Amino acid sequence: MSARILVVDDILPNVKLLEAKLTHEYYEVLTAMSGQEALDKVEAESPDMVLLDVMMPGMDGFEVCSRIKQNPATAHIPVVMVTALTDSQDKVRGLESGADDFLSKPINDTALMARVRSLVRLKMSTDEWRVRENTASQLGVVEETSTVLAQSAEKANVLIIEDQEFELKKMRETLSADHDTVMGVSSGSEAIELVKQHDFELLIVSLNLKGEDGLRLCSHLKSNERTRSIPLVMVASSDDMDRIAHGLEIGAHDYMMRPIERNELLARVRTQIRRKRFQEKLRATYEISLSMALTDSLTGLYNRRYLEVHLEKLLEKNIETKKTLAVLMIDIDHFKSVNDTYGHKAGDEVLKVFAERLKDNLRSFDLVSRLGGEEFVAILPDVSEERAHMVSERLRRAIADTPFPVSVQPEPLEITTSIGAALISQDADSVHAALERADKMLYDAKEGGRNCVVFEEKGKLDPEEFKGQIRPVIN
Amino acid sequence: MSARILVVDDILPNVKLLEAKLTHEYYEVLTAMSGQEALDKVEAESPDMVLLDVMMPGMDGFEVCSRIKQNPATAHIPVVMVTALTDSQDKVRGLESGADDFLSKPINDTALMARVRSLVRLKMSTDEWRVRENTASQLGVVEETSTVLAQSAEKANVLIIEDQEFELKKMRETLSADHDTVMGVSSGSEAIELVKQHDFELLIVSLNLKGEDGLRLCSHLKSNERTRSIPLVMVASSDDMDRIAHGLEIGAHDYMMRPIERNELLARVRTQIRRKRFQEKLRATYEISLSMALTDSLTGLYNRRYLEVHLEKLLEKNIETKKTLAVLMIDIDHFKSVNDTYGHKAGDEVLKVFAERLKDNLRSFDLVSRLGGEEFVAILPDVSEERAHMVSERLRRAIADTPFPVSVQPEPLEITTSIGAALISQDADSVHAALERADKMLYDAKEGGRNCVVFEEKGKLDPEEFKGQIRPVIN
Repeated sequence: MSARILVVDDILPNVKLLEAKLTHEYYEVLTAMSGQEALDKVEAESPDMVLLDVMMPGMDGFEVCSRIKQNPATAHIPVVMVTALTDSQDKVRGLESGADDFLSKPINDTALMARVRSLVRLKMSTDEWRVRENTASQLGVVEETSTVLAQSAEKANVLIIEDQEFELKKMRETLSADHDTVMGVSSGSEAIELVKQHDFELLIVSLNLKGEDGLRLCSHLKSNERTRSIPLVMVASSDDMDRIAHGLEIGAHDYMMRPIERNELLARVRTQIRRKRFQEKLRATYEISLSMALTDSLTGLYNRRYLEVHLEKLLEKNIETKKTLAVLMIDIDHFKSVNDTYGHKAGDEVLKVFAERLKDNLRSFDLVSRLGGEEFVAILPDVSEERAHMVSERLRRAIADTPFPVSVQPEPLEITTSIGAALISQDADSVHAALERADKMLYDAKEGGRNCVVFEEKGKLDPEEFKGQIRPVIN
Repeated sequence: MSARILVVDDILPNVKLLEAKLTHEYYEVLTAMSGQEALDKVEAESPDMVLLDVMMPGMDGFEVCSRIKQNPATAHIPVVMVTALTDSQDKVRGLESGADDFLSKPINDTALMARVRSLVRLKMSTDEWRVRENTASQLGVVEETSTVLAQSAEKANVLIIEDQEFELKKMRETLSADHDTVMGVSSGSEAIELVKQHDFELLIVSLNLKGEDGLRLCSHLKSNERTRSIPLVMVASSDDMDRIAHGLEIGAHDYMMRPIERNELLARVRTQIRRKRFQEKLRATYEISLSMALTDSLTGLYNRRYLEVHLEKLLEKNIETKKTLAVLMIDIDHFKSVNDTYGHKAGDEVLKVFAERLKDNLRSFDLVSRLGGEEFVAILPDVSEERAHMVSERLRRAIADTPFPVSVQPEPLEITTSIGAALISQDADSVHAALERADKMLYDAKEGGRNCVVFEEKGKLDPEEFKGQIRPVIN
């Protein structure tokens, strides 16, 4: 993918050299010659990547990187630090300030291009999700926009594939300080078995395995549905640069050169874990918005939209299985007077507790939804008529027997509910007709004095009939 | 990216040759030696791409491709046809059956690998969206899962960048049969200006421009935010294969060799347009679910969730601008008796029309939401007290003056509304307090006989006061 890359260095020939290399590969290049100019251009131009010199007069590269990564508007832009320093402390400092990688001068062209391609690809795959999460957060669907650095980098599950026993032991010990489960295996086949059983958040693969090609294993893990999205860090010798570049093309996210430095290992792993969790967070926003589209914001119950789509499906299934399905229309008695007397806040509190009690007294696969106002519907798949009677009565008592706490006054409120119920058996009419029938029964329940259940055919139920069969309500 | 590729050919040495080439590049390879075996493996293994021989005994490649593309479960998998035929009619037939590209034997390795990488990348970027659209459609958030082939491939806006006048004219004429706007320019700089002003759905770029590098233009278009997601088809000579491969790396979606064959041009353009529209559809599902999370399914008005997030924002803005904001609590009078007497269906019809009339009588930037049941809130930013009075009264009359049609009986129903109103000026209290105050006024309006507006401080309004100021309500 083509991309716009910002090159930052205070020495003009260095800028020109990188510019020429990148332009030759058809990247668009922007340049900056100081830390401040870099920050301004990052903000104004939103490049796809920053190649950032560490040693600059005034604001140095660490500071620039850390500012880019702390600004929510620019935190998603990959930063690669470029330096003549080879001290591992500097490397770690760069990674800790949020850099995505560290390249040493003189820059190896293969390493540079492989890294640029890999980071641009990762950024593109996240960008669209990020933009949409922004929208979702502006609309109030999710609380706030997240950034990579805001993610936890600890307590991950990590798998290391390394057949040099001592190396494996050292990596496991190092990572165990930060992480929950750090497993190690010495071959690809063992790894392939393990990833089927565990949910790993990071894979570390040695490219120097004896008797097998580590790259082949990377390729397998990256082309397999289950493991494709797990970040993969390669471990290799310094003369493996071509294979490392190939590994990045295949989809590995990062690499480390032997000998592995303890703090660099910790820092790189943290970076990958954060990035993975950030991606998951972005994608979760979609699921949140989906679930919001189908639930009532006050009670968390399903809404009418969901009810309508799913009742039809339940009914189809019921016809197949020749089971009976019960529809209960549930309405809070005199709810308007709760709002009028105690205020809307108290009314909302009652609705929430009411919803809770309905859920607590139904099975997990029963469908409860709020139609709006004080009206609820419960759909009970696969119940006998007797069972449906018993459940309705249990719901009625769960409401009437325990007063509802409200915050406006110390005394809880006495609340009752009326329930109208209809059964749909396999030879039944349409969903809408069944709802209408249950609704008519509800009307009868209201006319019949409220705080009661009216069943189609059976008529108003006698609570005495259910004595002893009803389990105590726990609130 | 690594990927799993299914190679289909009835001749074993052909299968082995392709397998070896792809395995060398670290792809995972599956093989099939007949059309039926290919279909079975596509369904069971869900590969990332299919390389499909055309000439096979029994079911030929066209048929296999067309079945893959017509099955919603496999339609997203890219198919590249491989053939010894060079007849352009066969090429077009392959593209029309849904193939993503056509490679001629003997296969050029550069062309093969560039194409595989490009299609795998495109597939990956769509896959995540596709999976989520599936979820959304199962949950009933969108009607049904879409496929590439179901998208319209006509009436697109296309831009051609080509400096050979005769070639440009021919392409424009050909494409004008299918498409709405087919523009042509002869240089990159003109193109860069035009894409700023128009929304193109496809760009066709000549790699043989005089005086400039067409690849540089591709790179610019692909790294620019505004044009990045527009599909780009390169036009080149047959000796340009290396540059074409580079173009695919940069992000171009397809290419055509000169001389350009009319039907091939039409077919390739159709494929790209369909794919672009499919991608847009997948992404639109996210927006639909976001908007559903914030709206009431019956009336389409904003829901309580949206109201709560945005009222706070409106209030902050109002304090900055020192304007007055009005809060109207709107409730349908005796709504319960509509449901009880005419049924829920009639009740829903009334709610819908009621919501329509509220919207019709408010400004586009006023915020109307349904709290649930028969309760609505309207927030009017930046209004004078007099204006707020007038609007409230206009709403009341919009409801009372025209009876509501219902489908259960020929006579429309007389419906009235009560409105309680409060003003928030810049020194005001909290959002919740203002809502409570408006709610108290609503209570007074109900107590005061309904079908009226009660304003904080001013008390119950005299409709006579507004005579002549109120514009006729159009329904």
